[in-house]
Amino acid sequence: MRQIDDALREALIATAEAMADAARAAILPHFRADGLSADNKAGHGFDPVTVADRDSEQAMRAVLADRRPEDGILGEEYGDVAGTTGLTWVIDPIDGTRAFMSGTPTWGVLIAVSDARGPVLGLIDQPYIGERFLGGLGEARLDGPAGRRVLKTRAPRPLPEAILFTTFPEVGTPEDGAAFRRVADRARLTRYGMDCYAYALLAAGQIDLVIEAGLHAYDIQGPMAVIEAAGGLVTDWRGAPCPMGGRVLAAANPEIHAEALALLQA
Amino acid sequence: MRQIDDALREALIATAEAMADAARAAILPHFRADGLSADNKAGHGFDPVTVADRDSEQAMRAVLADRRPEDGILGEEYGDVAGTTGLTWVIDPIDGTRAFMSGTPTWGVLIAVSDARGPVLGLIDQPYIGERFLGGLGEARLDGPAGRRVLKTRAPRPLPEAILFTTFPEVGTPEDGAAFRRVADRARLTRYGMDCYAYALLAAGQIDLVIEAGLHAYDIQGPMAVIEAAGGLVTDWRGAPCPMGGRVLAAANPEIHAEALALLQA
Repeated sequence: MRQIDDALREALIATAEAMADAARAAILPHFRADGLSADNKAGHGFDPVTVADRDSEQAMRAVLADRRPEDGILGEEYGDVAGTTGLTWVIDPIDGTRAFMSGTPTWGVLIAVSDARGPVLGLIDQPYIGERFLGGLGEARLDGPAGRRVLKTRAPRPLPEAILFTTFPEVGTPEDGAAFRRVADRARLTRYGMDCYAYALLAAGQIDLVIEAGLHAYDIQGPMAVIEAAGGLVTDWRGAPCPMGGRVLAAANPEIHAEALALLQA
Repeated sequence: MRQIDDALREALIATAEAMADAARAAILPHFRADGLSADNKAGHGFDPVTVADRDSEQAMRAVLADRRPEDGILGEEYGDVAGTTGLTWVIDPIDGTRAFMSGTPTWGVLIAVSDARGPVLGLIDQPYIGERFLGGLGEARLDGPAGRRVLKTRAPRPLPEAILFTTFPEVGTPEDGAAFRRVADRARLTRYGMDCYAYALLAAGQIDLVIEAGLHAYDIQGPMAVIEAAGGLVTDWRGAPCPMGGRVLAAANPEIHAEALALLQA
């Protein structure tokens, strides 16, 4: 495993912040712009890719080319780049493109840097609000309209007092949806539609659980590092590590994680 | 009908803005505060009333007592006040208390001033983001992180290209939900969880339709004035005016309104 000394730690944090700054500048001129167009990437269904999405990833790759040219890259829009350092940047230029197209300020730019075990540093940025959630390498912080604060997940509370988020009511397959509803039926409150912002709220101690399915590595590695740095945990629905995405259970603490996991597996 | 001259127009807009400023100051110290508590107003189900909710309404009533003591007041948290001017302020100190409790920045402060026909001026304020949507009396504007812009609803497009919002997937009664799904099944995209922010997005030209049920007067009068000022329309599910709330269909233009209305009534 690669050793991360202080100089590398500072370089990685500074690079992640510079990437997020570059993404903000690339995206914001397109947010709520008139005539926003969306391609249909998959050729069926609804998977919009905006100009902003591509501009954002190109802007972040330019920062990497300048500052960390030997690291690998795994991005949503463009090809993977193999690196030589043992470190890979895993980036989603706009997570929540449907939210973006609707004008909702709950999409985000997701950035992680990972070694062979998974993400060591993650960042969730919401450019319109001006909020940045960063976690890993000794940091767990939010910079936003109310200044800087420490990110810390919630203390344990029973599921009937807990708040659960997912993005789409159907969650995934019919089986995924049924498993989700076993948890939702016992939670105090279930809310929808937040994309990556739900993970940021979990890291900030506002909610207890996020359960989703069908995620990619670039959807979860940034949030995973932020949540773990804030005291929470992220696994798949069997309790195993999930740096490659799939079915994801993110929890504020081990107690609520265990309670949700038992219901997902019931 | 009361005639609104220039002096009164300016007084009403300035009062609404002062109320929203006061509400911001009252609410923000409580947003994402640790240990936020919520009473259960109804004694059953989930209807949180936070300290912030009450502080916000009291702050707005104090502005009215100072600036417009002869107008009536219809608020969510405190008793109604009969006025003598023919004008009534209809206020929701925090619309979207569930969003507020979850830390999601899509709750809002809703303010309307109404005459016998309905709202003549409305305001939707999102204090954390610092966004204010105001419409009526010749104004239709958003002040936010990106500066000031004019609010204008979307041009007509067919329902299969339209974006539809509601807050809860169940919408209302099973019959309400079935009617909603007749529209949702034909829309390009359906999103959840935005509370009053969905109406703001409609006024801003980002989405095409909002359909909800079970609303109160204070939930809809502010949004209604903003949307109408931006070129949209808000009726009940039979196409009639709905200043008292109930089942609400808000649309960007008459064409998409007619298309959705036919499906709701099918």
